[in-house]
Amino acid sequence: MTDRLLQLDIKMKQQGLDALLITDPKHVYYLTGFASDPHERFLGLALTQGEEPVLIVPALDAEAAHAASSVQHIMTHSDTDSPYTLLKQQFGERIQALGVEKDQLTVSRFELLQDTLRAQSYHDVGAMLQSMRVNKTTEEISRMKHAINLIEEVLRQGLTRVQVGVTEIELVAELEYLMKKLGADGPSFETMVLSGANTALPHGTAGQRKIQNGDLLMFDMGVFANGYASDITRTFAVGDLSKELTTIYNTVLNANLQGIQAIRPGVSLASIDTAARKVIDLAGYGPQFMHRLGHGLGMDVHEYPSVHGNNMDLVQTGMIFTVEPGIYVPGLGGVRIEDDIVVTEDGVVVLTSFPKELTIIG
Amino acid sequence: MTDRLLQLDIKMKQQGLDALLITDPKHVYYLTGFASDPHERFLGLALTQGEEPVLIVPALDAEAAHAASSVQHIMTHSDTDSPYTLLKQQFGERIQALGVEKDQLTVSRFELLQDTLRAQSYHDVGAMLQSMRVNKTTEEISRMKHAINLIEEVLRQGLTRVQVGVTEIELVAELEYLMKKLGADGPSFETMVLSGANTALPHGTAGQRKIQNGDLLMFDMGVFANGYASDITRTFAVGDLSKELTTIYNTVLNANLQGIQAIRPGVSLASIDTAARKVIDLAGYGPQFMHRLGHGLGMDVHEYPSVHGNNMDLVQTGMIFTVEPGIYVPGLGGVRIEDDIVVTEDGVVVLTSFPKELTIIG
Repeated sequence: MTDRLLQLDIKMKQQGLDALLITDPKHVYYLTGFASDPHERFLGLALTQGEEPVLIVPALDAEAAHAASSVQHIMTHSDTDSPYTLLKQQFGERIQALGVEKDQLTVSRFELLQDTLRAQSYHDVGAMLQSMRVNKTTEEISRMKHAINLIEEVLRQGLTRVQVGVTEIELVAELEYLMKKLGADGPSFETMVLSGANTALPHGTAGQRKIQNGDLLMFDMGVFANGYASDITRTFAVGDLSKELTTIYNTVLNANLQGIQAIRPGVSLASIDTAARKVIDLAGYGPQFMHRLGHGLGMDVHEYPSVHGNNMDLVQTGMIFTVEPGIYVPGLGGVRIEDDIVVTEDGVVVLTSFPKELTIIG
Repeated sequence: MTDRLLQLDIKMKQQGLDALLITDPKHVYYLTGFASDPHERFLGLALTQGEEPVLIVPALDAEAAHAASSVQHIMTHSDTDSPYTLLKQQFGERIQALGVEKDQLTVSRFELLQDTLRAQSYHDVGAMLQSMRVNKTTEEISRMKHAINLIEEVLRQGLTRVQVGVTEIELVAELEYLMKKLGADGPSFETMVLSGANTALPHGTAGQRKIQNGDLLMFDMGVFANGYASDITRTFAVGDLSKELTTIYNTVLNANLQGIQAIRPGVSLASIDTAARKVIDLAGYGPQFMHRLGHGLGMDVHEYPSVHGNNMDLVQTGMIFTVEPGIYVPGLGGVRIEDDIVVTEDGVVVLTSFPKELTIIG
């Protein structure tokens, strides 16, 4: 078994669980090396105390699973088989306490599982896997740095395509082309290019709007590479900005810097959100910063920890998360500046390196 | 209320439910016109019998929701609020029987919901929404035809970039660039370009392999446009094919045609799978066709109905699904030919029109 599987076996014992059923495809990848999106089909890693783990995959992924997985005991199910029957076969009658990922498992699947297995109790092991994943190894940090380097190069080359008259969606097409061309597996989420007043939509979608002089232009994007995600936001000025937008920009930049400065092992995640938010509150834009400061980043583009004002969990060495304050004024525009950071023993290393000072382009 | 909401209100009464909580973002879009990917945040449409529906959205989506949603009673929650408290506020103490989408709701959310609402019973309404969505309206069919036209134009233009020496992943980059350039919102799933022996992986991922003479070259791709998905697979020959690969190709093509011919309202979905599978079985490749014949297509790229040998549900007018037989021989290669069809009163209309005869390219 790999180190990670051994570690999980120990945790399973510590928590008094007889077996685990891992169904999050990211966790299956993390534990076995087999990356797969099973869509609506069933994919699961069954771990019983002291036994060899078993990977259950759709029949059409059997060849790929054998090639990639460190777990070589593989059971397959076709579209007409029940994977729960295979599970029953594997787990038998002896499972009292089963660990499952309640954040990932749907109610339908859970009910089928309960009907077939009839274990006595089901326990959430999301936190168990989270606690393993949150402390990034040097290998993981270097993969993330690679994904970050890629997206920053995409941004650098993409900026040369910006000119008045080009549409948001044309820029998205260019950027995603560059991602693939530069060797990324693909975007880690829907590439966001927003311009003008559209930048006031924190979750807006690129559209047919043409870039104009005096616009804010916001890029929020990332790539997956070797299983890890990057995520960066930069906001630019196309030509000269109004005074108010310039003030907003500098306020967000200052909040980003203050947030980063507050990070070190042992402080609460809430305190980092607060440090950044204070800058925006003092400038009078508090209500216009209506989202959390950041989120964990790794195999998922949003993962533990959530950096918000109520999260009293402590910052730990090896955590990677985003710092992304923003101000959004409906009808006028918005600015967000997002970095990816890793927590070190002494404090913090900012992994993103793209300049953050207000830059005029186009 | 829109027609769809009224229809749902009637179904809710018929099934004796006091309220519904709709949390699948696609269903929220279908019912309100507000398209959104809330990621890990909570998005829900709360419907109580005889009352105005309420949309609960993350605070940062409030502006977008107001702009797009036909439901204008909108409640927002920030990253530090509990959306379940808002739900309790909305539903109050009077909910006995609540409908939820058990295929979509995670166990964690369901447990939070149960703890907060304390309804007496929770019922799956997945099938209720499915039965609404499965019968596509003329408007929906025309949106899907548009998404299909787009992907076929992408394939047509993409084929001109194929030459010996280009990599699978370079072709993916070109194809996805064309999707955006031609006006699609983006790929409806991970664009698949596989070559040579890689085509034997039904779920393979495009990689660094260079196209060679004598290769099979498989494209499986689709786009989202105006909220609807297309999905097509075509397999080509780069230069001359071996005799065995040619036989495999023609067998798959025949299976595709026989499958389509078997479609008409009132027959079982299983019978269509069987009609296609029989062709492949007779040719001796039965075990090398290890997936179902097809899947429903609409707002989701995989939706009800599943076209497999055990699905005794009946084919209905207005259903749209794929017909995609394949043969996969490990080490040698694979062929899949996938069309999108709509069931009409008389039989079937094939929406995809890209030629299917064995074509030599490159």
